[in-house]
Amino acid sequence: MRDRLLIIGGVAAGLAAAMQARRRAPELDITVLEKSGDISYGACGLPYVISGLIPTLDQLRVHGPEYFRERYGIDLRLHSEALEILPAKSIVRVRAGGETGEVREEGYTRLVLASGAQAVCPPLPGHTLAGIFVMRHLCDGRRMLDYLERVGPRTAVVVGAGYIGLEMAQAFCERGLRTTIIEASHNVMSTLDGVLCERVAEELRAKGVEIIFGEKAAAFEGGAGRVERVLTETGRAVAADIVNIGVGVRPQSTLAASAGLETGESGAITTDAEQRTSVQNIYAAGDCCEVLHRVSGRRVWFPLGQPAVRQGWVAGENASGFEARYAGIVGTNVVKVFELELARTGLSLAEALASGFEADAIESETPSRASYYPGGSKILTRLVYDRSGRLLGAQMVGREGVAQRIDVYAAALHSNLKVDEIERLDLAYAPPYAPTIDPIQRAAHRAKLK
Amino acid sequence: MRDRLLIIGGVAAGLAAAMQARRRAPELDITVLEKSGDISYGACGLPYVISGLIPTLDQLRVHGPEYFRERYGIDLRLHSEALEILPAKSIVRVRAGGETGEVREEGYTRLVLASGAQAVCPPLPGHTLAGIFVMRHLCDGRRMLDYLERVGPRTAVVVGAGYIGLEMAQAFCERGLRTTIIEASHNVMSTLDGVLCERVAEELRAKGVEIIFGEKAAAFEGGAGRVERVLTETGRAVAADIVNIGVGVRPQSTLAASAGLETGESGAITTDAEQRTSVQNIYAAGDCCEVLHRVSGRRVWFPLGQPAVRQGWVAGENASGFEARYAGIVGTNVVKVFELELARTGLSLAEALASGFEADAIESETPSRASYYPGGSKILTRLVYDRSGRLLGAQMVGREGVAQRIDVYAAALHSNLKVDEIERLDLAYAPPYAPTIDPIQRAAHRAKLK
Repeated sequence: MRDRLLIIGGVAAGLAAAMQARRRAPELDITVLEKSGDISYGACGLPYVISGLIPTLDQLRVHGPEYFRERYGIDLRLHSEALEILPAKSIVRVRAGGETGEVREEGYTRLVLASGAQAVCPPLPGHTLAGIFVMRHLCDGRRMLDYLERVGPRTAVVVGAGYIGLEMAQAFCERGLRTTIIEASHNVMSTLDGVLCERVAEELRAKGVEIIFGEKAAAFEGGAGRVERVLTETGRAVAADIVNIGVGVRPQSTLAASAGLETGESGAITTDAEQRTSVQNIYAAGDCCEVLHRVSGRRVWFPLGQPAVRQGWVAGENASGFEARYAGIVGTNVVKVFELELARTGLSLAEALASGFEADAIESETPSRASYYPGGSKILTRLVYDRSGRLLGAQMVGREGVAQRIDVYAAALHSNLKVDEIERLDLAYAPPYAPTIDPIQRAAHRAKLK
Repeated sequence: MRDRLLIIGGVAAGLAAAMQARRRAPELDITVLEKSGDISYGACGLPYVISGLIPTLDQLRVHGPEYFRERYGIDLRLHSEALEILPAKSIVRVRAGGETGEVREEGYTRLVLASGAQAVCPPLPGHTLAGIFVMRHLCDGRRMLDYLERVGPRTAVVVGAGYIGLEMAQAFCERGLRTTIIEASHNVMSTLDGVLCERVAEELRAKGVEIIFGEKAAAFEGGAGRVERVLTETGRAVAADIVNIGVGVRPQSTLAASAGLETGESGAITTDAEQRTSVQNIYAAGDCCEVLHRVSGRRVWFPLGQPAVRQGWVAGENASGFEARYAGIVGTNVVKVFELELARTGLSLAEALASGFEADAIESETPSRASYYPGGSKILTRLVYDRSGRLLGAQMVGREGVAQRIDVYAAALHSNLKVDEIERLDLAYAPPYAPTIDPIQRAAHRAKLK
């Protein structure tokens, strides 16, 4: 019998693993089980379909199952849910064809778990009313679009001001809905610190989004089975013909934990640099597992698309008998909030202190272009560094040139550069793109002086 | 008597040196001699004043002499030309007040040479006709603007397709002049190689700029003392009511060489990492001196604004009795050619081979945003690397996201990263700004496979 690679999950990490395994092992039997009816799509594009910027949900699809079947000989099975892993027998119990489908056993030589993450939806009173959504999978987008078109809501509430919450608030606002964010903490984007959060809140308000800080959503109320308002814990009622819950995600690791795979503090699956789990012949990749944070040296849960694809490659490579290692993350991400680019890499000051660093932070605000060149704006940079001057993290917000500038700090973190080395980098200068001394260097200079 | 720091040159490097010395040494006598009547201006902005994008030349001025005098106690003397340096006596002979001015001796404890570079203007037949300009200093811009307004030219020729030539061609074109570039080689931007040059030529032609490759300008002809056409060496006549010569620059190092300061192959002044010249108590900084190229390990002449300012800081620091070192360059620059961003860092393939590397190159073309996100375009990347996989250089061209992406490669060069390490960087991803796997990483992946 041929060796068989079984992969649970057919979105980013799962398909990356399947494709990499196929590149390496032309003869391997590769089977991918996907619980839903959708594979290979850009989940990060969902808010832009809701806003109307991207006309149809289908544009987020990259490839259909036939592409993988016919072109790469990958057996891709939709509506196939893994119910149980039996490592001792190298078997997965799978229900095919939806909730009433038949349960069968699928054997494997090696298994890759790429079960992803799921949105957290707190079971508040009224949470089963129609019109309350999370936004994670293609089907979430499909359901929300249908509701928007069918019901025609005029007011929206977004619960939670994390990056998906911010993108959804913008999407509702751009669709013309009167939109309110309810955020339990006193800041947007818990992964940021300092005045950057304020800039984001200012931008949201300037675009007409209302923000209620420091209050939790406590209940949903409505009529005719549909949500009409959100009540906060202080009793405030906020009109909401539609609600998006963006309070966070959790790793889908129940299946793994039941099979005895080790999980970390975060609840996500523990892996080594080869993406091996604690159980032989089982690998994990993507949003269901922890990764090495190169700055803190800790294993953390950091569910994002780019690391997921890369871990998928590494898992696919190793699971097909070759060797690859995942270098880990430095915690880079970026989000667009209306006209603002908001990016971070490494640790925030709070995270650095919690990780045991003697850390400090500075902020620096500098123009994005030569002062005399029209159309520029200011970039606010916050750098976090330790006593030796080693960079620990960077956060940036501005109207242009942020999304790529953060990557220079990410590269600096990768190489363990100190702030005085960052100041000395030879960076590109031309009046339309940067001042003579780039904001990246200005901020490093300030950090060096302090 | 107080120690006296004398600085020759009052633009980028000279003023950076003066300011840094003042920060470090509040009591030091600091005198800056500037030959022209202009100091502290953004020379890189000149093409944008010519194009009309920046309404007046005055917007390029950063500070006037009184700013430096009153606020920092720096004695800034305009129209003061250094004629001779006498190191044995620690004296500079200076003519003040223009060509007929008085010659005086100025003593120094330490001297910083920041005499810059000058545009090369080949003495072709007819080169003294009115309407023929170089573009280097503020006064060049002033003269050209005056000519444009007074004479109202309708056709323009730019001789040389280096980055200033390209910017000037764009400026003329945007002013509505019928513009032709005459370039002796078969490519724009001699520092680029591969198909990137073709992309730039396509962009220029698409905007209506004609390009004549492989021919040299041989003579200028005209009537009533004004240029009317450029003749090429093959006898072609190109209509030209105005001409910009952009065939290159040369270091202004005659004064230094006459005083016995060592100069390199390029003719620019030799310095060490502290910006010391071969003669005691004399420092040099900016476009008049060579710098260490960190990739080739050679001392090269690379006259650009950002390195000039940084060398100025280092020279000012050391010349005031403190210690600083200039880390050298990796050869980064960027230029805007109409809607194209064109950037490079490190060595081109030709330069790498000439520097003795066993080098190879790949090209990679990838989208600037997620495929489904509207408004994206493609970025063409060329990477140069050696047999061990060490990155030696990168070149990029595209309509967005190039000017900052090149800086990630610059940081990678600074840290001597290999292409497989660059592939593993944790870079920012969001649909409006990048595909899941960034063009930076896609190109590195291709290089790794090869």
